[in-house]
Amino acid sequence: MIRQLTIIGVGLIGGSLARALKHQGYCREVVGCSRDAAHLQKAVELGVIDRFSTDIGEAVMGADMIVVAVPLGAMESCFRAMLGHLAPDAVITDAGSAKECVIKAARAAFGELPSGFVPGHPIAGTEKSGVEASFAELYQNRRVIITPVAESALDAVTKVRAMWEKTGAVVDEMNASHHDEIFAATSHLPHLLAFALVNTLVGMDESEEIFRYAASGFKDTTRIASSDPVMWRDISLANRDAILDMIDRYSQELIAVRRAVDSSDSEALREYFAQAQAVRNRFMNQTNN
Amino acid sequence: MIRQLTIIGVGLIGGSLARALKHQGYCREVVGCSRDAAHLQKAVELGVIDRFSTDIGEAVMGADMIVVAVPLGAMESCFRAMLGHLAPDAVITDAGSAKECVIKAARAAFGELPSGFVPGHPIAGTEKSGVEASFAELYQNRRVIITPVAESALDAVTKVRAMWEKTGAVVDEMNASHHDEIFAATSHLPHLLAFALVNTLVGMDESEEIFRYAASGFKDTTRIASSDPVMWRDISLANRDAILDMIDRYSQELIAVRRAVDSSDSEALREYFAQAQAVRNRFMNQTNN
Repeated sequence: MIRQLTIIGVGLIGGSLARALKHQGYCREVVGCSRDAAHLQKAVELGVIDRFSTDIGEAVMGADMIVVAVPLGAMESCFRAMLGHLAPDAVITDAGSAKECVIKAARAAFGELPSGFVPGHPIAGTEKSGVEASFAELYQNRRVIITPVAESALDAVTKVRAMWEKTGAVVDEMNASHHDEIFAATSHLPHLLAFALVNTLVGMDESEEIFRYAASGFKDTTRIASSDPVMWRDISLANRDAILDMIDRYSQELIAVRRAVDSSDSEALREYFAQAQAVRNRFMNQTNN
Repeated sequence: MIRQLTIIGVGLIGGSLARALKHQGYCREVVGCSRDAAHLQKAVELGVIDRFSTDIGEAVMGADMIVVAVPLGAMESCFRAMLGHLAPDAVITDAGSAKECVIKAARAAFGELPSGFVPGHPIAGTEKSGVEASFAELYQNRRVIITPVAESALDAVTKVRAMWEKTGAVVDEMNASHHDEIFAATSHLPHLLAFALVNTLVGMDESEEIFRYAASGFKDTTRIASSDPVMWRDISLANRDAILDMIDRYSQELIAVRRAVDSSDSEALREYFAQAQAVRNRFMNQTNN
């Protein structure tokens, strides 16, 4: 049971967490914080938070659980604003899509990392953003990864894990650098590829006509290109090395496909597509989606 | 009204066309043809076709409308098997995803192109295939492109157009080479990118773990990688030049994104993602999807 949950950044991720925990009766009070009072007022009206402050120091006061759900580029200043206002038993976690950079930001802000600090990453979301898009079921059967640091107290890790499990999520632990490599592959690369696909077509003379004839396959492939530009800028900056590595791997793969198309290598093409199809079908069967 | 519709290749595309036209009472009889009698018997049981033959010559006999819905690589032999069996008023169209190669195949098979020949391409489909996946509503509000040749009789063009309009589709006309350029961009490139993405991840040491943590964005992005390998082999062979051109354009785009990530160019990244987001959102609003 959480006494006071403070959510910094009340959008899709933070808002859905608040809704899920309220629905479970797992926290007494939810305090929201962002720079925009009108937006926070809206979150109160939607029943997502109980009260709010636009001041981080004030918002975290008395909180035993603090969830920072802001773009990666804003993490350090959020942590810095908490200094001197944290309750002794405050647990601090976040929802950032890259983890090494969050740890770096916390170290820069706090100096020594607090024992209540447990970085996290819920693997959920839609291309929509904002508290209006939040819903209590977002995390059901989704995975949340926590990446405790050496300084994280076992008790704090247990509390973060318990909170996410209450939302219906499955919680896994791994180290931050491994997390960042995995997500460069499974999330960051696909997003950059989708942005690049849309921009490739935009740059063509026939772009209006091309978009007119785009079928459902194209719509699905580029859905994630509707994601928030600031969030993806921050992820690209934060997980730079792993992302560059993935772009390079992908470019090599593209060279291989190009070679098969160029040489009209019928058997190589069929095998190439069949391998992708088989893997994807196996993956979808595993995830029951 | 069609007297006898013969569909060669009774899968998702051919089967859905037959269902839609039957539903509209627009054809007296539907004859199916493929190499697999058990499969055709299944199509009869599903009410998709009325009768069948595994012999193309027999199946097209008496047909005033013939729709060839087979992989591009099988087009030429299908056309060849029709020789000497066509009714004088037979209209012949197809559902191939590339059009210049179908015209080339027809020319190779028929010598002089018949005046009833009107190539076509319904922009619809799912990653599923087979007659079991067919449904009457597949073409509703979808586009069908027809690419008449110089030899196509006006009357034949009108009949093909009318048939597709009966399914609820919107019919556009363009020339075959323009069609192939547009679809290299809007369909063929996205498919190759999705196949390449799955295969990039397969090749990594952590591939099992990567697929375990793949979120909904990845699932959407790679949905079309579950498409039929033979179909995509044939498209890659058939529309080679336009596809190579699109892979090259995309590679240039990828180099540009890589450069922005590599140099941590915050403003360039934000602008790049914002452009893609704006274009995609505008496109989705236009198509109301």
